[in-house]
Amino acid sequence: MATNAELNAKLESVLNEIFEASNVIYKDRGFQRRIGFGKRPALISVDLANAWTRPGNPFYCGDAMDTEIIPGMQRLLKAFRAAGHPIVHVTTAYQNTDRNDPATDMGMWHYKIPVDAVNLRDEEIWAIDSRIAPFEGEYVLLKKRASAFSGTPLAGYLRSAGVDTILVTGVTATACVRTTICDGLAEGFRTIAVKECIGDRVPGAVAWNLYDIDAKFADVETVDTCVKYLASVSRNAKSVAAE
Amino acid sequence: MATNAELNAKLESVLNEIFEASNVIYKDRGFQRRIGFGKRPALISVDLANAWTRPGNPFYCGDAMDTEIIPGMQRLLKAFRAAGHPIVHVTTAYQNTDRNDPATDMGMWHYKIPVDAVNLRDEEIWAIDSRIAPFEGEYVLLKKRASAFSGTPLAGYLRSAGVDTILVTGVTATACVRTTICDGLAEGFRTIAVKECIGDRVPGAVAWNLYDIDAKFADVETVDTCVKYLASVSRNAKSVAAE
Amino acid sequence: MATNAELNAKLESVLNEIFEASNVIYKDRGFQRRIGFGKRPALISVDLANAWTRPGNPFYCGDAMDTEIIPGMQRLLKAFRAAGHPIVHVTTAYQNTDRNDPATDMGMWHYKIPVDAVNLRDEEIWAIDSRIAPFEGEYVLLKKRASAFSGTPLAGYLRSAGVDTILVTGVTATACVRTTICDGLAEGFRTIAVKECIGDRVPGAVAWNLYDIDAKFADVETVDTCVKYLASVSRNAKSVAAE
Amino acid sequence: MATNAELNAKLESVLNEIFEASNVIYKDRGFQRRIGFGKRPALISVDLANAWTRPGNPFYCGDAMDTEIIPGMQRLLKAFRAAGHPIVHVTTAYQNTDRNDPATDMGMWHYKIPVDAVNLRDEEIWAIDSRIAPFEGEYVLLKKRASAFSGTPLAGYLRSAGVDTILVTGVTATACVRTTICDGLAEGFRTIAVKECIGDRVPGAVAWNLYDIDAKFADVETVDTCVKYLASVSRNAKSVAAE
Repeated sequence: MATNAELNAKLESVLNEIFEASNVIYKDRGFQRRIGFGKRPALISVDLANAWTRPGNPFYCGDAMDTEIIPGMQRLLKAFRAAGHPIVHVTTAYQNTDRNDPATDMGMWHYKIPVDAVNLRDEEIWAIDSRIAPFEGEYVLLKKRASAFSGTPLAGYLRSAGVDTILVTGVTATACVRTTICDGLAEGFRTIAVKECIGDRVPGAVAWNLYDIDAKFADVETVDTCVKYLASVSRNAKSVAAE
Repeated sequence: MATNAELNAKLESVLNEIFEASNVIYKDRGFQRRIGFGKRPALISVDLANAWTRPGNPFYCGDAMDTEIIPGMQRLLKAFRAAGHPIVHVTTAYQNTDRNDPATDMGMWHYKIPVDAVNLRDEEIWAIDSRIAPFEGEYVLLKKRASAFSGTPLAGYLRSAGVDTILVTGVTATACVRTTICDGLAEGFRTIAVKECIGDRVPGAVAWNLYDIDAKFADVETVDTCVKYLASVSRNAKSVAAE
Repeated sequence: MATNAELNAKLESVLNEIFEASNVIYKDRGFQRRIGFGKRPALISVDLANAWTRPGNPFYCGDAMDTEIIPGMQRLLKAFRAAGHPIVHVTTAYQNTDRNDPATDMGMWHYKIPVDAVNLRDEEIWAIDSRIAPFEGEYVLLKKRASAFSGTPLAGYLRSAGVDTILVTGVTATACVRTTICDGLAEGFRTIAVKECIGDRVPGAVAWNLYDIDAKFADVETVDTCVKYLASVSRNAKSVAAE
Repeated sequence: MATNAELNAKLESVLNEIFEASNVIYKDRGFQRRIGFGKRPALISVDLANAWTRPGNPFYCGDAMDTEIIPGMQRLLKAFRAAGHPIVHVTTAYQNTDRNDPATDMGMWHYKIPVDAVNLRDEEIWAIDSRIAPFEGEYVLLKKRASAFSGTPLAGYLRSAGVDTILVTGVTATACVRTTICDGLAEGFRTIAVKECIGDRVPGAVAWNLYDIDAKFADVETVDTCVKYLASVSRNAKSVAAE
């Protein structure tokens, strides 16, 4: 039986072959276009709360959290704050996690995944990870569904703030990040998926979801590219000089 | 100059004449139909929080709160709890009430009304009035906009709970109650406006808003009628007997 | 018994007294603020289709259509087209107007008002009035609900076009115009109600709805003011000169 | 270099290994729960229109259309019609496909994919495939975005019809089907993805998207299972007997 490392290596190799074959179809048909960055970005950081970022919690997303996602987020947050653009920290929790109650703010989702593990009373579990803690004035958005836009005032908030572009980070690629990106595009924003800052908890899921996303819903860009872009659209003359 | 009492009496008299003239047009054209009660109701109580219910707060809605709205709500809540149907307590508050910040969860609304007076940190101001305090398990929904449906997961919550009818109460007739009713109908629910439990803070506003609502968006019904209806659709056999 | 003219005169007089009394309360509490015009407007013209604009149809909105609303719209359209800003013509119609079918695109609304009178097959009835006919490239948006935003892609369309301000016209003040304005504000746009271009079919309804709207949801402005504003934000240098 | 057949075989083998490894994680954490069928289903058939179903069109989804998807749909439609439950045929087209116009009903999507190829004037391209043509009274829903729920009145339509369960079919797994399923769950419906009736245009995409969907957003079920279920919830006594 293959070890995880062997399995992942094999998967990566086959996915790359598949992606190359798909690229031919997509290019030929006019998919995989570039949406590009606009002039007024916001950061939408999805579910980088303890239940997802810290070991021992049901939604924990693994080692990449410490090695890639949190460090990438720290760079992005620094660049966003220096440039003076809005930051939204999204998290998920429920008032009523009783699966036997037919009327709960979990809606239908507890029939598929263990959202009943994130009760609003247990603030520690849904609080944003302290390594990327919100600053005063940054919006902490509590959602109930996968997408940060669905059943929340996010689209109106962003429009009222003059935002035209969203940089999306967080977990998971399969669920909350992907749905947030799809909805963000639908609601009229330029959508950027920040490559190193998006994670998941099962093998392959980041790779194929980012592939689908880049083909149809957002440009996948590195933290480096995003940090450079942010310096170029700073609303704060001094911070630009200081960069 | 007319006193308030004289002014109100004069207004009521003229509005009644106007409503009679309008009724002729509406009936002739097929408006003012009855939507009726369904089988699975929920109570949507809008903004009966201290800023709206207690004197001295900017959103305070006046004497009718103590004489009519709260007593009516107490009867309705008792009937809903006995019948075992969902209750949603809606309130409104903001994380960022700095009107100079271009990115705030007040969105555009602070350009029209003093939502900056309801900061989320001041829980006393947005907490549901203690005379109609939520019971364990009842949903307390924090909204940012006028409608309890707009930018919230309410429609999905109600559908997942099997609800087909909403009884709407609270303040104000002009804003949060009316928009909640319009959206509730649009989202596929039978809509009932509970007459004695809807208030406002300026003269005439309840009268003309309920008139418009009854003509086009919801049936206006008394607390008595609603309490009788609730007993007839109880999900709790014992409580029916006990009624 | 009072004639209609006498009744309307009496109503206007009393409403003005009431509005003055309400203004005191609103000013004191910080309502009736000005939202102002932004930099990138769009025109949202609601239900100025034959069923609403032409005599003999159930939704017809009366003489003001010919004397005020259509002429005002003609001036506004000219100014919008000269300035190069987006125009959205909204109308309402249904595929299935069988009230006995439990699944129809009328949703719940036919239980309150005669939407079954506007069948999608009868294009004449829901077509935009020929006096203000859409030009090539202007968006004709078919809606099912009162609000032009509810259950439509309008908010995303406007955001993707960079719009920050909406000027709303049409009928009726009670229903489709008012809900469109409330939702437009909620979705993050500066909202302007164009005074002479908003109508209704029952006495008083325009007056009290515009009063409520101006207090809480949009600035009510004249066609003159809007036309001047449009010249000041033209995207078309030549047309500015020509104005 | 591998042939397509070899590549697909290799992919399938590796994906199966990966899915097995992921299943262990998902089961351990409480994902991959069963949502189950409810009592009042509707069929949501997404983009089975000529641009997607017929060769020579840019969105064409390949041979599986003729061999699996259309035949599966024909069985499903027959079962739905016999049982008397609502059917929604969803398609996608645009009024303004000029990519140089900043205000178009394509919104932001044309920056990623060739939606400019589906103009509303060319009815042949967006008409539902004649092999599964809508019957009188079935709802044909025109959407602009990926999800059949986003920017449409679908959720309200389904709620007003008393629907509690949606069976989703069509193309593509990557985009319109997946987003429709995610939104359907969020809006409070039990979600079923009909396995043989979901397609895509690049290799692997159906497999990994259905895997993600089944883990978190909907139960993936066969046409056989769905047809049996529909007979059990028929609203039409005679058709039940006839089944």
